[in-house]
Amino acid sequence: MVGLLAVSRLERSLALKRIRTIEVGSHVGERVRVAGWLHSLRQLGGVSFLVIRDGWGTIQAVAETEDELAPLYSGESMVGVESVVTVEGQVVSMTQAPGGVELHNLHIEVITPVTEPPPVPLNKPKLTANITTLLDHAVVTNRHPARRAILRLGAGAMAGFRATLTARNFTEISTPKIVASATESGANVFKLDYFGRPAYLAQSPQFYKQIMVGVFERVFEIGPVFRAEPHDTTRHINEYVSLDAEFGFIESHFTVMALLRDVLAGIMDTFNEDYAAELQLLRVQVPVVPLEIPHIHFADAQELIFKRYRVDVRGEPDLSPQDERWLGEWAHQEFDSDFLFVTGYPMHKRPFYTYPDPKRPEYSNSFDLLFRGTELVTGGQRLHRYEDYLAALEKAHLPVEPFESYLEAFKYGMPPHGGFAIGLERLLMQLTGIPNIKLATTFPRDLTRLTP
Amino acid sequence: MVGLLAVSRLERSLALKRIRTIEVGSHVGERVRVAGWLHSLRQLGGVSFLVIRDGWGTIQAVAETEDELAPLYSGESMVGVESVVTVEGQVVSMTQAPGGVELHNLHIEVITPVTEPPPVPLNKPKLTANITTLLDHAVVTNRHPARRAILRLGAGAMAGFRATLTARNFTEISTPKIVASATESGANVFKLDYFGRPAYLAQSPQFYKQIMVGVFERVFEIGPVFRAEPHDTTRHINEYVSLDAEFGFIESHFTVMALLRDVLAGIMDTFNEDYAAELQLLRVQVPVVPLEIPHIHFADAQELIFKRYRVDVRGEPDLSPQDERWLGEWAHQEFDSDFLFVTGYPMHKRPFYTYPDPKRPEYSNSFDLLFRGTELVTGGQRLHRYEDYLAALEKAHLPVEPFESYLEAFKYGMPPHGGFAIGLERLLMQLTGIPNIKLATTFPRDLTRLTP
Repeated sequence: MVGLLAVSRLERSLALKRIRTIEVGSHVGERVRVAGWLHSLRQLGGVSFLVIRDGWGTIQAVAETEDELAPLYSGESMVGVESVVTVEGQVVSMTQAPGGVELHNLHIEVITPVTEPPPVPLNKPKLTANITTLLDHAVVTNRHPARRAILRLGAGAMAGFRATLTARNFTEISTPKIVASATESGANVFKLDYFGRPAYLAQSPQFYKQIMVGVFERVFEIGPVFRAEPHDTTRHINEYVSLDAEFGFIESHFTVMALLRDVLAGIMDTFNEDYAAELQLLRVQVPVVPLEIPHIHFADAQELIFKRYRVDVRGEPDLSPQDERWLGEWAHQEFDSDFLFVTGYPMHKRPFYTYPDPKRPEYSNSFDLLFRGTELVTGGQRLHRYEDYLAALEKAHLPVEPFESYLEAFKYGMPPHGGFAIGLERLLMQLTGIPNIKLATTFPRDLTRLTP
Repeated sequence: MVGLLAVSRLERSLALKRIRTIEVGSHVGERVRVAGWLHSLRQLGGVSFLVIRDGWGTIQAVAETEDELAPLYSGESMVGVESVVTVEGQVVSMTQAPGGVELHNLHIEVITPVTEPPPVPLNKPKLTANITTLLDHAVVTNRHPARRAILRLGAGAMAGFRATLTARNFTEISTPKIVASATESGANVFKLDYFGRPAYLAQSPQFYKQIMVGVFERVFEIGPVFRAEPHDTTRHINEYVSLDAEFGFIESHFTVMALLRDVLAGIMDTFNEDYAAELQLLRVQVPVVPLEIPHIHFADAQELIFKRYRVDVRGEPDLSPQDERWLGEWAHQEFDSDFLFVTGYPMHKRPFYTYPDPKRPEYSNSFDLLFRGTELVTGGQRLHRYEDYLAALEKAHLPVEPFESYLEAFKYGMPPHGGFAIGLERLLMQLTGIPNIKLATTFPRDLTRLTP
């Protein structure tokens, strides 16, 4: 029962309440107790510099005597980095120290000793290992301050999304991830054995969030979605977190775009207000979301590319990544905006539930939001009349039967409605500029990776 | 393009901004506009009583002339309930009206006409259909005010859980739902085809939340979990929402119990503060969470049952539902508490990662929380030393290899930690007293049900 000693030590030392490393700065002159992982240990002359990392930050502790370090020894050898320790010390203001304060006159206790060095050093400013090593050992590499800052921004994005929508009377929903049929497209779904019957993992909560507009009018969901896309690129993962919103009684896709603008502003505000340390560590400049994000119609965007960049993409059914970069460049130069809405994508490139542009029915009441020249969000207005659904399914050569429950919502009255979905990891990747989306999630799933 | 007319109508009538039905009461004497579903329509003498239901409540509108009702007619016949409408009217204080106000001098517009009556009447105070019909048509029956009040309390529980933990510096995480091996037990997992390899749906985020204690120290996750239990009971669903928390630097399971107490109090506070209408509609009395929830050790609980109820269950490895009811009764009579912690369950009934009681290693540092005599939450302290895990796996005759990534967290230093998981639907069922857990979720998954 090696573990017990540590607990009784924890109990004994309770006299001094533990504070977080990021709180040490406001206790100059006091004696405090921190706890965490031994992030690094350097010995310079007779002085030892320990850095303790807890769940929020790091603090330097300076030992000037052998006695202070004695608890780190087990026999002849010293415990290694990542050992779990508590350190009591006097808070001293010290301009050279990282963060401007450090601990002196230490009383150290080891809670969990570690002897083996971690597979990748966690105490260098940059994680230098290749991505395979980083992901194979994500259990440990996620502890690196830069890695966890990205992951914590994920929590911030969820919080900002939720706060903005809750303030607008949206209700949070949870919808099933095991579904009876491949929803949006028949391809790229994971198939599973459901008590002897075939079932699938939901590619999106699209149908359910629309149905729930009939219940709550305004709904959002934060949950996993599953895409069995057989691509191994820097921009694909097979399970990701989708931030979904859907609401009723809209005018058109412009009502949805106005909401999305506010949601993005809410997320960025949350970053600025509550995640300053993470932004600073990652050197991330949070983009300013304009009060009104500029927008351009798909057809006009193609005209613009022709006029401005002398490449004729008019008539193409979709925008290429290069087209999107050009448009991003234009939005930046013309409107000083990192964001640009492209509206009115051709109907035949959008799913069957898309609402057509009343004036030009070959185009749709839909949009993509480009962020710095790359697609970040897709959304739009959906059909809301039962008859329109029947016609749309027929036009798409889709059978009615698998959609019967979905159609029931429209049979019994649905208002004009629409919504959008933000891919959490894509947002984090584009915001922080990391080279691979797999680094924007705790434990990615890709073509070959199922662990950790 | 039937849908277009409605949108242009919406645009035209924008002059008067739509308010929600629950806001009408604060506009007495003014002319307002509401929008929603035609919940009911009664004609009494020459007067017609319409009830409009929007995403938040209902409001009565009274038409005294044929002209006012004219927009509801399409040819000879009138549109049916669940049609989507907007109604402008004068707000009149009327003590007999539900809610004390109603709308007069109506201007009605139909946005989406409905002709067929819904499969189950939505405008009776109680949904009288049998559960199969209710669930088969959940797309529509979820619109019933009593059904949606339960579902909205689900949003409240998530919000209260999150707010309590965020205030205590917990970080929200998202962990994979597709996993490489059956985690906690080999049985009862859904198997899927992952690009030609077998994979499974996560039964719980247990391993990942522990691993993430190594990163953030304090973490929570709200997400789906999947249990392939082949039971069709009123207390089982195969996909549910788990509210998971896990944190480091605890003393023992009592630290975890103290946090759980605060989380439950936070959820109940959220209900009382923001969900009064739902509680009233469902006639739910929110339980008081005592400042300190009483607790009893497993062995003492068995002694108590023997002394108090003359049934000898001493030595049984677990508590039966009857035992739990007796203990709930005792807690209610002795401490006036709806809640009771039972601590120290025998080690061999708990998973391999459970921390043993240092003084009596045949018992564990774990707990169940009983709410009104039924288990609601399970939690406890986990092992945190690498060597303890190796020994525990060996004792449980489990191979090391499938747990290698999990074990890596402990190899590189983990603090004493623990946590708990609350089943969202079970909480809602026990709180509202509904007879079947399937009614506590939007679209349940059970042995036979994959749609809607």
